[in-house]
Amino acid sequence: MTRRIPEAALEFGGIKGDRHFGITSKADSRQPMYPRGTEILNRRQITIVSEEDLAQIARELEIEKVLPEWLGANLLVKGYPELTKLTLGSRILFPSGAGLICMGENMPCTLPGEEIQKHYEHHAKLATRFVKAGYKRRGIVCAVERPGIIHETDEVQILVNDYSNPMQ
Amino acid sequence: MTRRIPEAALEFGGIKGDRHFGITSKADSRQPMYPRGTEILNRRQITIVSEEDLAQIARELEIEKVLPEWLGANLLVKGYPELTKLTLGSRILFPSGAGLICMGENMPCTLPGEEIQKHYEHHAKLATRFVKAGYKRRGIVCAVERPGIIHETDEVQILVNDYSNPMQ
Repeated sequence: MTRRIPEAALEFGGIKGDRHFGITSKADSRQPMYPRGTEILNRRQITIVSEEDLAQIARELEIEKVLPEWLGANLLVKGYPELTKLTLGSRILFPSGAGLICMGENMPCTLPGEEIQKHYEHHAKLATRFVKAGYKRRGIVCAVERPGIIHETDEVQILVNDYSNPMQ
Repeated sequence: MTRRIPEAALEFGGIKGDRHFGITSKADSRQPMYPRGTEILNRRQITIVSEEDLAQIARELEIEKVLPEWLGANLLVKGYPELTKLTLGSRILFPSGAGLICMGENMPCTLPGEEIQKHYEHHAKLATRFVKAGYKRRGIVCAVERPGIIHETDEVQILVNDYSNPMQ
């Protein structure tokens, strides 16, 4: 279950108690280069979506809204519409000094769509339509680069990694 | 000191005993977004250079050769000249099942150049000239995604991450 909390402690591995917490995780269908279930480095510790992307998904699905908790997202950011396009290696820095490093785009699957469907019983095929509506709007996955406390109202600094002149 | 070994065990964190080993490492001048010395996620566990890139650096410096151990590289690959351009999120897979994930380009600094200079006393300014000669030829840094044994003669499979249709 996903619920809103006013603050959280980022640790190496993610947020303790979250189902994605861990320095390592088990390979699944997303990593076909490894046998399913083998222990691999966890780059999907924290998922982030943008309010603007969610609004766009809702418009496309012709529903009132899509809440981040329906997608199982850990964080919601506002004011950065292009979040899903954030390059790998980019940093998201919090006032406490905590830092996340972007490990890439989150790929849409049908599970969040099934959750959305539950909230809009009279709309047809939201689960499958979500895959298309969520394309390039599904947010990003991150790893904790530097631990620290984060708060609901934190203003974050986003350092965009330029592939032609990369940050280290 | 860097010496050649016929095989090595990749563990989460890198190669035990190597100075870059660790799930975390201390931020240095390469990560100006964090205070120097703070513990951050270690994405520079394994450094890899290509034989073709080293040959090109040597040509540019007008010296006979540049050995990977002079640069402190952990691995040398042959037959993949574009190694330094390998995209973030790309995988290097070994016959044992071990896997590395590319965390980006290694940036040249003057230290390896100073090492090269020691081997060619009669050539001028190799340390500073190395920075330019090594630009975009300095190889990549990787994290261990899946542990396993690797051998000197291993043939690796390289899965290139396409940013427009990224691997997870």
